[in-house]
Amino acid sequence: MTGIEEKANTASQASLELANVSLEKRNEALQNMEDAVRNNEKEILEANKKDVEKAKKMLEKGEYTQAFVDRLKVDSKKVKKIADMIKSVSEQEDPLNKTIKARELDEGLNLYKTSVPIGVIGSIFESRPDVLPQISSLCLKSGNSVFLKGGSEAKHSNRVLYELIKESSEQAGIPEGWVQLIEARKEVRELLEQDDKVDLLVPRGSEEFISFIQENSKIPVLGHARGLCHTYVDKETDLEKAIQISFDGKVQYPAVCNATETLLVHSEIASKFLPKIVEKYKEANVKIKGCEKTLDILKDDEIEKAEKADWDSEYLDLEISIKIVDSLDEAIDHINTHGSKHTESITSENKSRLLKFMESVDSSSVMANASTRFSDGYRYGLGAEVGISTGKIHARGPVGMEGLTTYKYYLVGNGHKVDSYSGENARSFTHKETQNLWSEKREEWSQD
Amino acid sequence: MTGIEEKANTASQASLELANVSLEKRNEALQNMEDAVRNNEKEILEANKKDVEKAKKMLEKGEYTQAFVDRLKVDSKKVKKIADMIKSVSEQEDPLNKTIKARELDEGLNLYKTSVPIGVIGSIFESRPDVLPQISSLCLKSGNSVFLKGGSEAKHSNRVLYELIKESSEQAGIPEGWVQLIEARKEVRELLEQDDKVDLLVPRGSEEFISFIQENSKIPVLGHARGLCHTYVDKETDLEKAIQISFDGKVQYPAVCNATETLLVHSEIASKFLPKIVEKYKEANVKIKGCEKTLDILKDDEIEKAEKADWDSEYLDLEISIKIVDSLDEAIDHINTHGSKHTESITSENKSRLLKFMESVDSSSVMANASTRFSDGYRYGLGAEVGISTGKIHARGPVGMEGLTTYKYYLVGNGHKVDSYSGENARSFTHKETQNLWSEKREEWSQD
Repeated sequence: MTGIEEKANTASQASLELANVSLEKRNEALQNMEDAVRNNEKEILEANKKDVEKAKKMLEKGEYTQAFVDRLKVDSKKVKKIADMIKSVSEQEDPLNKTIKARELDEGLNLYKTSVPIGVIGSIFESRPDVLPQISSLCLKSGNSVFLKGGSEAKHSNRVLYELIKESSEQAGIPEGWVQLIEARKEVRELLEQDDKVDLLVPRGSEEFISFIQENSKIPVLGHARGLCHTYVDKETDLEKAIQISFDGKVQYPAVCNATETLLVHSEIASKFLPKIVEKYKEANVKIKGCEKTLDILKDDEIEKAEKADWDSEYLDLEISIKIVDSLDEAIDHINTHGSKHTESITSENKSRLLKFMESVDSSSVMANASTRFSDGYRYGLGAEVGISTGKIHARGPVGMEGLTTYKYYLVGNGHKVDSYSGENARSFTHKETQNLWSEKREEWSQD
Repeated sequence: MTGIEEKANTASQASLELANVSLEKRNEALQNMEDAVRNNEKEILEANKKDVEKAKKMLEKGEYTQAFVDRLKVDSKKVKKIADMIKSVSEQEDPLNKTIKARELDEGLNLYKTSVPIGVIGSIFESRPDVLPQISSLCLKSGNSVFLKGGSEAKHSNRVLYELIKESSEQAGIPEGWVQLIEARKEVRELLEQDDKVDLLVPRGSEEFISFIQENSKIPVLGHARGLCHTYVDKETDLEKAIQISFDGKVQYPAVCNATETLLVHSEIASKFLPKIVEKYKEANVKIKGCEKTLDILKDDEIEKAEKADWDSEYLDLEISIKIVDSLDEAIDHINTHGSKHTESITSENKSRLLKFMESVDSSSVMANASTRFSDGYRYGLGAEVGISTGKIHARGPVGMEGLTTYKYYLVGNGHKVDSYSGENARSFTHKETQNLWSEKREEWSQD
């Protein structure tokens, strides 16, 4: 048995116990974790300093960017933020033991569809040290064991955070081994093979990174490889709104997955709209690439011709491609062909055109007269975000803690057998929806 | 491009249109399908006759069992049943455009989490010709395109049913190519590779068959390879109920996935309970295998010693293994080690022991004082069943039409940009749950 197999067995065993740890105890453990982070700021900052110093050397060699080093850095304010985040998770509603549906099947035979943890989550992420405490808190609150593999550039920071979390949570009575750290890259390969023990992978990182994981594991993956989002400006649009939304989608924070990468503009409004938005983009130093028709309208030497590859490019930067389309259908086709099923936006004052766009575009989030940048767990009011999924199975779009749960059917009878419902004198099922709550049954039964 | 790639492109394109076909039109198409089945009984029976005749020859050669040939056979009654099943699907509630959650993010900025089709479903199944119309109806009602691959032994029956369904539904205006038939086995391999076009596989069949599919595709799989279900008779049990439930679980229909395969009995009740249940099992010709302790108590030469492999065997027949356990924990451990996460049952009059068992056993359905045989979509009141899933992602346990849907976030604003919520004078989100319905917005907008 390899080290990872052993760890997976331990995590899986712990998950069976953790599934039944009370909300009180889970929250107590989260409070312990919060305190541990607050009380060990010095230790965290020292560990982080080692990572940052190494990263600075790489920066000098030109291997890292300044932005990369900045994201890695943890200061007092960041430590406080991490502790606050853990606190906010402890304050969230319990995602477990919720009665999703209750149904009487027959007299004295009651079904409860109840939320339960998934089991063992594998979280693989790059750089940012605050991901580790965030995903650990969400997993603990939702009763899941978790494997953590951070980027090697944050090795020291991750190690100290992991140790604080493990120690403080296990002291509060959380089953030992519920949280596991992986540090070597070759261990990731082994983790990806544990499909009988690890139930879900939640990777965060670059497109290549996510694709690598999807290609190399049979474990279901929740996440997104690309965020190639579009904003479509319809012919019947309010120009001012269209400008605000197109500008916000690209410029407000271009490095993230829900930023707009391609602007589609209806040909009937292009000559009015394009000069205005392009002026604003240029003020904000956005590099612009346009289709032939765009170039014809703008007659601006600074605007490059968009190549075929541009329609499939996620720039993640102050860069945008613009295409003029002759119809709503052409816009929809372009998105369904080149998009990543992440987020698209339409600006239009014609409601039936809004509706057609929203229902025809095959993406996890579609905005009518609002920026693509809204698609985010916090803005959607889901609490802390597990990630954004562009898959269609299990959870889609911004995913909150609910995405770390599944359900279980509990059927409570009193000697009921299936044979009574067949043959002569067969009983019939009543199949009545009820307001029964598993939590009440649970309360009653635990007194016995 | 291979034939399957082309078919997958067509199905995927059709699915984008089908997602927006109205409930009225989907139901009209289902009615057309129902009529086509009823009006072409002769054609169906003739095609089926060819399959059955071929199967009978295989039966003579000893390659098929009588039960296999029986399952293949379609008569007038079965044709009527198929048509009735299509009718019942048309009468079910629309699974699409349901507002799962609605939330105001800010004034004039409203989020709708709305049910939508998954896209393209791949259904691969063995023998029984009624699976093809069932899965086609469920996919059409839920707005999905579907690939159908039946067993070669039902080739003629499946072909004629497929043609009737395709023609009658497309006549009613369902996008051409929404339903695709695969007949050659090598095409299945190609289908399994279409992970960019096929969104979900729903296979039915033997353990080897499902495992093969899980091993050979990156497409998510909904289903179960094994149904190794347990009934546990606790020490504080009502003997009569325990006998009824243990008997029903094994004998009522042993060939199915929710039948009990292993009986676990608490040692304190074993000498009272075992002679009684064994007498009943023997009357029903159940072959019994027992652990050492079981043999000691029963002292019956007809009872074989259970080998290690028996605890992992899904007999699917009148055969059961019996194990005596010394504690509730031992029963739980045995199930979590040897079970298939399908269905388990406990009989006990002690509520806290019922609770512990139900919450500790990591299976999709857990029964308290009711037979394992209840875990089934029809009995659970889910309508026609897509399948039973032992995975933990997306859908678990018996899966109804809801399992063929996912959701999409619709955000409706009025020029809203994310930038307004940051920096000085930042607006705050209101995050209020609302009773807004996407279906109402949809109705209003489609009038425009």
